[in-house]
Order: sequence, then structure tokens, then C-alpha cells
Amino acid sequence: MAIFLGDNQYGKAENRVVRIVRDSPRHEIHDLNVSTALRGPFGPAYLEGDQSNVLPTDTQKNTAFAFAKLVGTDSIENYGLALARHFVGDVAPVEGARIEIEEYAWERAVIDGVEHDHTWTRAGRETRTAAVTVDATGEYVIGGFKYLVILKSTGSEFAGFLVDEFTTLQETHDRVMATSLVAKWRFDSTDVDWNATYDKVKAIMIREFATLQSLALQQTLWHMGKAVIEEIPSIVEVRLSAPNKHHFLVDLSPFGLENPGEVFIAADRPYGLIEAQVLDENAPPAGDAWRIAAGLA
Amino acid sequence: MAIFLGDNQYGKAENRVVRIVRDSPRHEIHDLNVSTALRGPFGPAYLEGDQSNVLPTDTQKNTAFAFAKLVGTDSIENYGLALARHFVGDVAPVEGARIEIEEYAWERAVIDGVEHDHTWTRAGRETRTAAVTVDATGEYVIGGFKYLVILKSTGSEFAGFLVDEFTTLQETHDRVMATSLVAKWRFDSTDVDWNATYDKVKAIMIREFATLQSLALQQTLWHMGKAVIEEIPSIVEVRLSAPNKHHFLVDLSPFGLENPGEVFIAADRPYGLIEAQVLDENAPPAGDAWRIAAGLA
Amino acid sequence: MAIFLGDNQYGKAENRVVRIVRDSPRHEIHDLNVSTALRGPFGPAYLEGDQSNVLPTDTQKNTAFAFAKLVGTDSIENYGLALARHFVGDVAPVEGARIEIEEYAWERAVIDGVEHDHTWTRAGRETRTAAVTVDATGEYVIGGFKYLVILKSTGSEFAGFLVDEFTTLQETHDRVMATSLVAKWRFDSTDVDWNATYDKVKAIMIREFATLQSLALQQTLWHMGKAVIEEIPSIVEVRLSAPNKHHFLVDLSPFGLENPGEVFIAADRPYGLIEAQVLDENAPPAGDAWRIAAGLA
Amino acid sequence: MAIFLGDNQYGKAENRVVRIVRDSPRHEIHDLNVSTALRGPFGPAYLEGDQSNVLPTDTQKNTAFAFAKLVGTDSIENYGLALARHFVGDVAPVEGARIEIEEYAWERAVIDGVEHDHTWTRAGRETRTAAVTVDATGEYVIGGFKYLVILKSTGSEFAGFLVDEFTTLQETHDRVMATSLVAKWRFDSTDVDWNATYDKVKAIMIREFATLQSLALQQTLWHMGKAVIEEIPSIVEVRLSAPNKHHFLVDLSPFGLENPGEVFIAADRPYGLIEAQVLDENAPPAGDAWRIAAGLA
Repeated sequence: MAIFLGDNQYGKAENRVVRIVRDSPRHEIHDLNVSTALRGPFGPAYLEGDQSNVLPTDTQKNTAFAFAKLVGTDSIENYGLALARHFVGDVAPVEGARIEIEEYAWERAVIDGVEHDHTWTRAGRETRTAAVTVDATGEYVIGGFKYLVILKSTGSEFAGFLVDEFTTLQETHDRVMATSLVAKWRFDSTDVDWNATYDKVKAIMIREFATLQSLALQQTLWHMGKAVIEEIPSIVEVRLSAPNKHHFLVDLSPFGLENPGEVFIAADRPYGLIEAQVLDENAPPAGDAWRIAAGLA
Repeated sequence: MAIFLGDNQYGKAENRVVRIVRDSPRHEIHDLNVSTALRGPFGPAYLEGDQSNVLPTDTQKNTAFAFAKLVGTDSIENYGLALARHFVGDVAPVEGARIEIEEYAWERAVIDGVEHDHTWTRAGRETRTAAVTVDATGEYVIGGFKYLVILKSTGSEFAGFLVDEFTTLQETHDRVMATSLVAKWRFDSTDVDWNATYDKVKAIMIREFATLQSLALQQTLWHMGKAVIEEIPSIVEVRLSAPNKHHFLVDLSPFGLENPGEVFIAADRPYGLIEAQVLDENAPPAGDAWRIAAGLA
Repeated sequence: MAIFLGDNQYGKAENRVVRIVRDSPRHEIHDLNVSTALRGPFGPAYLEGDQSNVLPTDTQKNTAFAFAKLVGTDSIENYGLALARHFVGDVAPVEGARIEIEEYAWERAVIDGVEHDHTWTRAGRETRTAAVTVDATGEYVIGGFKYLVILKSTGSEFAGFLVDEFTTLQETHDRVMATSLVAKWRFDSTDVDWNATYDKVKAIMIREFATLQSLALQQTLWHMGKAVIEEIPSIVEVRLSAPNKHHFLVDLSPFGLENPGEVFIAADRPYGLIEAQVLDENAPPAGDAWRIAAGLA
Repeated sequence: MAIFLGDNQYGKAENRVVRIVRDSPRHEIHDLNVSTALRGPFGPAYLEGDQSNVLPTDTQKNTAFAFAKLVGTDSIENYGLALARHFVGDVAPVEGARIEIEEYAWERAVIDGVEHDHTWTRAGRETRTAAVTVDATGEYVIGGFKYLVILKSTGSEFAGFLVDEFTTLQETHDRVMATSLVAKWRFDSTDVDWNATYDKVKAIMIREFATLQSLALQQTLWHMGKAVIEEIPSIVEVRLSAPNKHHFLVDLSPFGLENPGEVFIAADRPYGLIEAQVLDENAPPAGDAWRIAAGLA
């Protein structure tokens, strides 16, 4: 009987890199959570505890902070590419690098109608994400966000569904639809205006969510992904994960009250969970663009 | 030896009330988390299990949802007052009611530059809070917010502090100052434009945080509280709890790099915690305005 | 109009102190979360930014770690008393100190039936707490725990309650009762076997929860607090906060199934919240034993 | 340009199923969090909003609760298999089902040395998990746990690692090693004593963690996975994800104190993250055993 080491990677997760750009009195802030992972000939570290090829995770942390100074963090995609290229190109045994980054949004404080030079409040809205993979097969960038919480108070239906012996749900033609959307999109290039593209993807998805008379959350997701690929040539794949955050109409009739879509209880659990992948048929191979950690897949 | 029942209260916590105002095609959304608690002659429920005076927490839940329809939720302070007055005035044995409410902010979706009638995204910024107490001594309203995350990249110092044998900290005259502020303010009236006042308090606090050359977070808190009381006559007391969210300058010198206030690591724990109460000397008695649950004090 | 500084305190929160006792090959582990706060003549720090009386929170952190070596952490109550006495007794301007500590439980790993000398797994059960206050009026110790999650599958009723126009709840004489209990108890002495007493309090509370045929969670709390004061002379006050973690019987009748108390859905929100204080009539004054931060009260 | 729908699934997540077995006065409790997902010809729901093949997530929820009565929950693996087989076998359009379950551990209350018949406290230790996939290619069961928090106070080293220009870490031959382990193991059969096997896997992993003189967390993970496959014939693959929960020795020398491995600060972020897959070379194909939601991969 033979047992062998399969997929593996190691790195430093959640380096909280905050970069202040102070080249002028009007400062800028970039607030990042950076995770690095390396792939390569690390079998001996597992099988014999031989670290000779292992760049310490502490060094990966130092590198993440140093690169925030060396290359800056104007976009998390470019910063992630620089980090990944360094690990693969400059550290001999490393064959592949995976850099995952979250960026938290801040809004400039406005004092008496004037934007302040060096004070911000956390916007708290959705978190922008990037996943950059560099290996012998190429460079792959996935943009995204997580937890875009969006709700529409009408323009959503659910009817005509399959019924079996465990079905008690009633049809509805006017309901609240809400989700906390996780979206990821794959680029076919690294020559992209990352920040402008992020804003455009978000605007398209919000537009589709708002304007489609939805027959199901599935249909809304499809329209979101399809519109992004149609309108942004550099994006060839979109993946969406959407919890259906149920808002149940409260029965006020025991109290002699009508409730025409006005008072809802926001439920925590359980929730529907709809997930889908939308692809351009001409998308190039994804390589390890979507590969995540072994233990988590 | 005699043992007796002291302070006590009971209620229903975290009713997730979502109210859609759909009187016109342009809907409004109010997203609340409502907790009710009743005080009065409930000793027999504890000592003998006699529920005859106990209005079930399930009924309190029903009442919270019904009142979202009956009186609306245009401001959490007025909605809370209506609920508290009902419990004390309409439910015979109840002597006091405490209503605590959180409100989550939503932003109207903008599609091609036009605000959408019935779609919003969660703003995710600070949570507005209210605590309303009604009892035989009067009516008390505390407004507030929690987790206003605010940061300034300069204009903050810390020096001239006490030194003992366990002190290793170096003085600084230029540091990042950041907090996740919890603020509560007591009104001396219930005849207030609650929503406009909330916006004004928040603007004043952000202004003071941004514009004061801070010698310590303590000094910043004092200026925040003092300015609110000075500029808003209906507010007579402010309480502030401010974690000092440390952003440590990263030493890049081992890598031959300078770091003139550009690259920081955002630390999780430990954190400083500064708390203060600022009062108008003419403030009326607070009664039970600040009283919270026995078990938590 | 005069505005003044009221209650205030400052300190370092959540110092994650892990103490390994390795005097013998059989190590011990104490895993603590330590928060310190100082009270005294700190007004100038707020009003003028004058830090000359301010012992930095960074120094308080250093002190917490140094005392883990100097006095050890065999009980969080004694460790907290040593820290508080040091701040009040050895740091000139300090008039009062409040030390709040959480302790996380670990269980020794058992390998082939033998306890291992230096490996543990986190028990993950309730968190033990202590709050120590030392000031000119004396020394006060509050023991406690938070989040003791306990459930009984029968032996709980709720009936005979007050009914009003918003009441829809049905009576029940057999339900699941569950809570995530927060309990705090005040001692009238500092000469206590802290660890043995903690175990005894927990055992008494679990016994009362299990054995009382409960007519209401209120009744169960009263019996818990009363029994602790009766059986442990050094404890003169108990405070309890108990969310009623609802487990609703699922209606399986649409599927032709009976459900005699077998299948429940555990609800998240809303939940009942019952809170009570139980006192020995001969309890000495509590002083600032229960005083918490201004901003949070 | 053609755009198409790729991978997709939908279901109901986090059904909080609590099952009380009360066939005798000595009750049993099973506390589960059940997520179901269906795969099949659901394209029309996305592309045209046609729900005719869509079994509502609400129905999936009902089914999860009904099956807790119909087949019981003695092991989450068998319960998950029953649910998955039902969806694939009894609901015409469904081609594949994925059932993911978490089980929370409870300990029977002990009153005066005697186990109580119907009262428990939450153990709070690691969460047991199962992921069951049934489709046309077969039946796949993955057992596991998440967040087994384990620590050793000695018997861990880290030295001989690769050094580059960003490396500042010092070698160590005696450190604290701690992790919060996520482990998943694939079975080659569905004819398994699931509960006994779970206990055995956990015991083996704790044994390897404790007894190996570790040269790196990588080495410890390899020994854990290898031992499980060697000692449990029905397990053919193990996947491990292990954050390196750093415990840093505190420098007490400024205070004239030595610290020979006694006082540590438990750090939150960043943390190392080591992940590995260990395989039996004779493992059968995994099919979709490891496939998770599109949006998350």
C-alpha cells in the first residue's frame, strides 16, 4: 500500500496592509487584507521536515509589506501581480504563487461641504477582492467582490415551480428579493484598467438586479453575468454565489391589520443559496485561476 | 439568611423588522433590529413561576411588528416611544418599558445616473441606535450610533506621558489615529427632529475628529462630546467609547527601504479603549435612561 | 452654559496572554484575554491633552504580560487582584483599577488512554470570567462565565400568561428549554479558593436548570441564583442574563408525520431575554464592583 | 459571441435541525446544520425563469426536517445519504444532490455524579462535518471536522529554511505549535461505522500532532494524513487545512525578567496557512466528491 502527498500549498494569510499615499497634502488610503501562497517542490518539508526549499511565511509577510512601498497598491490586481511575479521569478524553488487580496472601502470625510485631506470613514459596503495566480502556464487574474447586499421591494416573482409531497410553499408574484452577493470574474488579459473595470462590473450587476422583472433569483444571476461578459470584453467568465435572504411578509391579520407588502421579518437561517457560472465560449483555458487550497475544496 | 430578587427585566430581543413604505412608486426602506424589555411586578414569575402578570415575549414581538404598520418607522426614536408608551400605558401590570433599536443604512441604487424607485444596497457604514425608556418618572430618549470607523493619517500625536518601569513606548508627533466609535447622546426632550439631529451629531463628531490636532484620543473624545452639547440644545449628555485601533508603522529598514508614514500594519488585539461621559451642568436627572440589563452591568 | 467631563476610564483591552507552566515535564496552560482600565485624575488628558498623569495603554499591556510571569495565572481572580493592586498602589496618580479577564478552557490530550504532558485541545465550552476592581473603597471580585449553552428536552412549561390583543402564543406544558447563560457572582471576600468555587457554582447552576420542573425561564434563573448564594457563603450576589434560545416544534402533519417532541428547528432571532439579580440581604455595599465603561452603560 | 451557463446548483443552506430521541426516559440529542443543493437540468430557470423543473428550496427545507423523523439522524453520513438518494431517486429532474452537514457536540449534564436523562451542555469543541454527493456516477461520502483547536507547548521546531533578502525570521528549536485544524477524509465505501470511525480519525490525528517531534507544521500534517489512511482501510484520501496560530514569546528582558518559554502573546493575524492532500494510490476516482459551489471555488 502506497500513500503519497497530493496537492499542497503554504503561505501567510491575512496580512493587514494599510498604505497611506502622502505625496501631497491630500492623502490617499488603501486598506488591504493580503494572503499569499506558494506552490512548488515542497514535498520534503512534509515528508522529512526538510525546509531547505521553504521560504518562511514570515518572509512572505515581510515581502507583502515591502511591496506596498516598492510598487504601491493603486490597484489590488497590479499589486497582486507584482507579488506573484516576484515569488515565482525571484525565489528559485517557487513554481507557482497565489495572491488573494481583499480591499476595504473608505470614504473621504466631508467637513462643511469640503472633502478633508487626511480623514476618512469606513464605507462598510461590499469588499473588493482579487485572486492572482502566476505559474509556468501563465498569469491569471480574477476580480470580484463579496457581500454586496442588495434588495428590491418589488419586481420579483416565484411561481410555476415543481411540486412534490414535501411542498408547502405558495406562489407569489410580488415579493422582496434580497441577497448578499459574492461575484468573481476572470480576465483574459493583465492589461486592464482594473479600478474603472471594477466600478463598471458593479454598476452593471446592480442595474440588472434592479431592472429585471425577476421570475427567480437564478434568472437574475444569469442576466448579471451575461451582461458583464457582453459589455466588458476583457472579462470571459463570471461566477456568482447568491444567498436568497428571505424577507417574510408578517401576518398582521390577527390584529385586524392589512399588510400589503409593507412589514417583513428578515430571516437569518435557513436561506436559499443559488450559484452559477457564466462563460464566454471563446474564453481561454482557466489554468489554475480558480484553484484554491486543497483542504478547502 | 434571606435572599431576595433584585433588579430584573424580560423581553424579546432582536426582532428584525423591515418596513417598506410603498405609498408611491418610489418606495422607502427602514431596516431595524428591535429589542423590547418590560419592568414591573414580575417577582411571582421568578419566585413561584406565576405568569399571570407576564406578557409573553412572543406578544412583544407581535407588537413590534404591528406597530411598524400602525405608527410607522420614520424615525426609530418615535417608533420606540410609541412602543414604550403602549406597553406602559395599555398593558396593566407593566410599570416600565425599555426599547432598544438598531437601524441599518441602505443607499438607493443609481442606474445610469438615476435613483431607482425600489432597489437599494446596504451602506454598511455605522449603525444608528436608539434607547427609549418610559416609566412613572418620565420618558427618556438616547440616540446614538455604533461602529463609526474613522481614521486620520496625520494630525495625531502622543507624547509627554507617564513613564514607569514597565514603559517601553516611544513618543510620537505624527501617527495614524483610528477608532470604531460608539457614541450615545441623551436628549432633554421628546420633541426633536430626530433624523436631522442624527445627521448633525454625526457631522459634528467627524468634524472634530478630523480638524483637531490631537494630543491624545482622550482629547479628541472631549472635543467631540463638548461640541455636540454646545451646538445641539436638546442634547445634554454624550457618552463615548473609542477603541484605539492601532496602525503600527512597519520597519522596512532591513530591506533598505524608508517608511515615512506610508506602510502600516493594522493590528487586531490588544487595542486601547478610551471611554468618557460629557455633561451639560444643567442636564435634568437621567432616571433610568442609561439603565441596562442587570446581568450585563 | 457649562460643560464638564463626567465618568471616564482608559486602558488596554484584550491582551491575549498565554501562560505555560513548565516547572515539570507535565506542562500546564492558562489561556487568558486580559483587559485593564485605570481611573483617576485624568481630566487634563481630555481637556488639554496633557498626558503627564497618563500611564500609556502600551505600558498596561507590558504589565499584564510581566505579571503573568511575576505572579502567575493559577487563578484569574488572584492574577487580576495582583494587577489591580499594582496599578493603584504603585502608579502614583492611579486611584482605581478595573481588570476584566476571560479564560478559555483547554483539555489535556489523551493518547492511548494516557494524558499527554504538553498537548491540549480547546474545550470550547463556556468562558470563565472575572472582573476585579480596586479603589480607595476596597477590593471587589466578581466571578462569572459567559455562554454556558444548556438545553433540556423536557421538564419545561409555559402557561397561564397575560393575554392582550397582540397575543397569539399557545400554552405549552412540555417544551425544549435552552439558553446561552451569562452569569456573574459577587464575592464578599478575596480569601477564596477561586478555582474550586468556580466549579461549584457551575455545578449548582446546571443542577438547578436540570432538576427544576420549570414554569418559566424566570423561575429557573431564580432557583439558580438562590441556590448559589445559599450553598456558597462567600457569594452574596448573582446576576444572570439568559437568552431564551427558542426551539420550535416543526409541523410535519402536511407530510403525514407525527412529531411528538422529536424534530425542532433552532431559531436564531428574535429570542426572549430574561435578566435578574439575586441578592443576600446581608450583602456588603457593592461599591464600583459592577461599574463598567461609561460609553457602554 | 456566445455566452453560456456553466456549472450551477441551488439549494437551502443552514437548516438548523435539532432531533431529540425520546424512545426512553433517557433522551438523546442530535444538533445539526443541514445544507442541501441540487444539480441537473435547471438551465431554463436561469435563461428564461422557467421553474417547472425547480424543486423549491423551501421544499428542500421541509424534506430535511421530515427526514430527521423518517430516517433519524444517528449519523450525519447516513442521514445525508438518505436525503441525497431521495432527491436523486424520487424527484424526477434531479440528477445530482450535495448534502453538507455540520454536527454540534453536546455533553450530558452530570448531577451529583449521575448523568442526567434530558439535560446537556454544548461541548463547543470541534464541529463534525459530512459532505455527501449522489449522482449518476455513484455515491461519495466525505467525513471531517472543522476547527479542532490543538496546541503543544514544546516538541516543535522551525529551522534550516530558505533565506532571501526579505527574511528576518530567526530559527527556533522549541516553540509553541497551535492550529485550528480543518480536516476532511474521503471514504471508498458507504458501508462504514461512521460514528466509531469519526472518533478513531480524531484520536489518530491528535496522537500524531502530540507525539511527533515536529520540524514544521507541514511534516505534522503529512503524518496525520498518512496515519489515518494506514490505520483506517475505508479512508482513501485526507485533506488538511491548518492555520499556524502563532504564539510569540514575549520579550520581558526590559523588565529584568527571563522568559524561558512561559509567557506568550497569542496573535490573531496574519497567520501561516498550510494545506495538503494525502492519498492512497489505490483510491478510486473522486467524481464530484470534492466539488463545491461554483461561486466559491
